[in-house]
Amino acid sequence: MSAHSKQDANKPRIAFLGIGLMGKPMASNLLKAGYKLTVWNRTEAKAQVLAPHGATIASSPGNAANADIIITMLEAGPQVKAVIELALDKIAPGALVIDMSSTRQSEAEELHHMLAQRGVHFIDAPVSGGVLGAEAATLAIMAGGSAEQFTRAEPVLSAMGRPTLVGPAGCGQLAKLCNQLIVGATLDIVAEALMLAQAGGADPAAVRQAIRGGFAESRILEVHGQRMLDRNFMPGGQVKSQAKDLENVLIAAANAGISLPIAEQVTEHYRSLLPITSNADQSAILLMLEHHNPGKRVGTAADKLPQE
Amino acid sequence: MSAHSKQDANKPRIAFLGIGLMGKPMASNLLKAGYKLTVWNRTEAKAQVLAPHGATIASSPGNAANADIIITMLEAGPQVKAVIELALDKIAPGALVIDMSSTRQSEAEELHHMLAQRGVHFIDAPVSGGVLGAEAATLAIMAGGSAEQFTRAEPVLSAMGRPTLVGPAGCGQLAKLCNQLIVGATLDIVAEALMLAQAGGADPAAVRQAIRGGFAESRILEVHGQRMLDRNFMPGGQVKSQAKDLENVLIAAANAGISLPIAEQVTEHYRSLLPITSNADQSAILLMLEHHNPGKRVGTAADKLPQE
Repeated sequence: MSAHSKQDANKPRIAFLGIGLMGKPMASNLLKAGYKLTVWNRTEAKAQVLAPHGATIASSPGNAANADIIITMLEAGPQVKAVIELALDKIAPGALVIDMSSTRQSEAEELHHMLAQRGVHFIDAPVSGGVLGAEAATLAIMAGGSAEQFTRAEPVLSAMGRPTLVGPAGCGQLAKLCNQLIVGATLDIVAEALMLAQAGGADPAAVRQAIRGGFAESRILEVHGQRMLDRNFMPGGQVKSQAKDLENVLIAAANAGISLPIAEQVTEHYRSLLPITSNADQSAILLMLEHHNPGKRVGTAADKLPQE
Repeated sequence: MSAHSKQDANKPRIAFLGIGLMGKPMASNLLKAGYKLTVWNRTEAKAQVLAPHGATIASSPGNAANADIIITMLEAGPQVKAVIELALDKIAPGALVIDMSSTRQSEAEELHHMLAQRGVHFIDAPVSGGVLGAEAATLAIMAGGSAEQFTRAEPVLSAMGRPTLVGPAGCGQLAKLCNQLIVGATLDIVAEALMLAQAGGADPAAVRQAIRGGFAESRILEVHGQRMLDRNFMPGGQVKSQAKDLENVLIAAANAGISLPIAEQVTEHYRSLLPITSNADQSAILLMLEHHNPGKRVGTAADKLPQE
C-alpha cells in the first residue's frame, strides 16, 4: 500500500464509478484524503491505474455499489441512469448517491425520485474547472439536494474541490448550466469585441491588454481571449460539450417558463459551429463569427485545430 | 501654494478643459504629479475648487489653450468639437491635444484631421474605471495616435492611470467601444443566468457564489451580479451612457463592414430599457429581462432606483 492510502475506518466507504479524464484525478484525491475506495470503469484498464494507490477494482457497477456513498462521474445523463440501474439492487437503503456528471436538470430530478423510492439519498453535484481543477482539488462543485445529505457529503466533496449547496435535487445541474451559459456567451462576445477591434483598424492584442483589469475583465478574456489571438483552438473545453450544455440551458429555461434571448442566440451560434468543428476548443466560436463576416479575421497566426 | 503643487518648469504646461465628475480628480492627479495646469469649465465654480491646489483658472477655452498639451474631458463628441473650435486659434502648432472623452471613432478621426491641418497633434485617449478609478489614478486609458505622440503623452497619462497605445487616431475610442460591448453584453448574460437559477428553483445568490472563481468569473459577475441580487440600481455607470456607447458600437461595426449579432441584440435591449429607466445603473438591464418574463423576478429585495 502506498503512502497515499492512510485509510480511516471511521470514514464512509466510497464507490467511484467512471474513471475517465476527470474521474481519475478526483478518485485519486479521495484516496489521498484517506477514504476506502472501490472503483469501476467500463474499460477496466483505466481503473487499474488506481490499484497501486490503494483502490479496490470492481468488475461491475453492482460489485462496487456496496458502499456508504456512491459517486458517478460519467459522460451524460443517459449513461448515469444506465449505470445506476445496473447497480441499483446492490445499493443499500440509507446510502447516498452523488452524481458529479453534467446532466439535464430533469434527469437529475428523475434519478432523485428513482432512488428515493428505495430509500437511497441523492445529490447532483456537477463540477467546473476541468482536468487541471480536478488534479489540484480546486473544482467548483455545485450541489443540489437536502441540507442534511449535503452535510454528509461535504467532507467527501471538499477533498475534490469547493462544494456549495445551491438548492434541492436538480439545482446543482441548473447551476452548472448557469455557469456554462455565462461561459459560452462571454466567449461569443469576446470574439465580437476582438473582431471589432481588428476590423476597425486597432491592434486587437493591444486592445485586450488595454481593457484588462477593468469592468470588461473576465477569465474568458484572460484565457480564451489570448487563445483567439493565437488562433489556438486545441481543446480545452470542447465545442461539442458547450453545444450540449447550451441546448440543456434552453430546455431548463423552457421548463422554468422563461425566455432568455441571448442564450437562444448563443446556442444557435454553437449549434451552427458543430458542422465546422466539434472537437475544437470552445473559443473556436470565433470561426463562426468569421464565417458570417467573410474576409474578416482576428490575428495573423495559422489556425491550430484538432482532428474531427 | 499647497504641498500638492511642486511644479516643475521642465514639464509640459497642460490645459485641462472639462472639470466634471471625472475631470476634477484627473486634473487633481496632474497637479499632484507637479504639472503646471490651467483649467477651464463651462460652469466656472467647478474649476475654482482646483485653484487652492495650484491650478490657474481660465475664463474661456481660448484663454487656457496656450499650452504644450491640451486635454479635453467632456460629455461626448459634439461638445469636444465645439470646445476645440473655440480654442483653435490659440493652440500653437506642435502642441498636442489629448481627448479623453468618450466619442465615436469617426468623431476622433475628424478631430485628428482638423487639427493636423494646423500642425497640431492629436491623441484620443478615453478611459474606463469611473470616478473611483479617476481618484485612485488607476484608469484604463486606451490611446489612439502615433507612437511618437504617445511617447510624449505617456508620462502625463500615467499620472492618471495605465495608458496603452492600441492603434492610430480613433482607435482609442474603438477600444473603449470594445470595452463597453463586453461590459454591456456580460451584464445582459449575468441577468439571464441569475433569472435561470431563480426560475429553475435554485438560490441565485448561492449559484453566483458556487460559480465564482471559475471560467464564468468576471468583474461584472462580482460587482453587478451582487447589485442584481440586491436590486440596487443606483448609479454607477448609467443606462443612458451604456445605451449611447452600444449605439456607437453598431456604428463602428457598420463602418468596419462587419456584423456583430450579439452586439445588435444587446443594443436593442438597452435601447428598449431607456423608456423604463435611463438614469439607473446599467445592471438595471435585469428589469428589461423581467419585463419580457412577466411574473419572474430575481431576488426578494425592493428595487432601489434613482429619479428619472
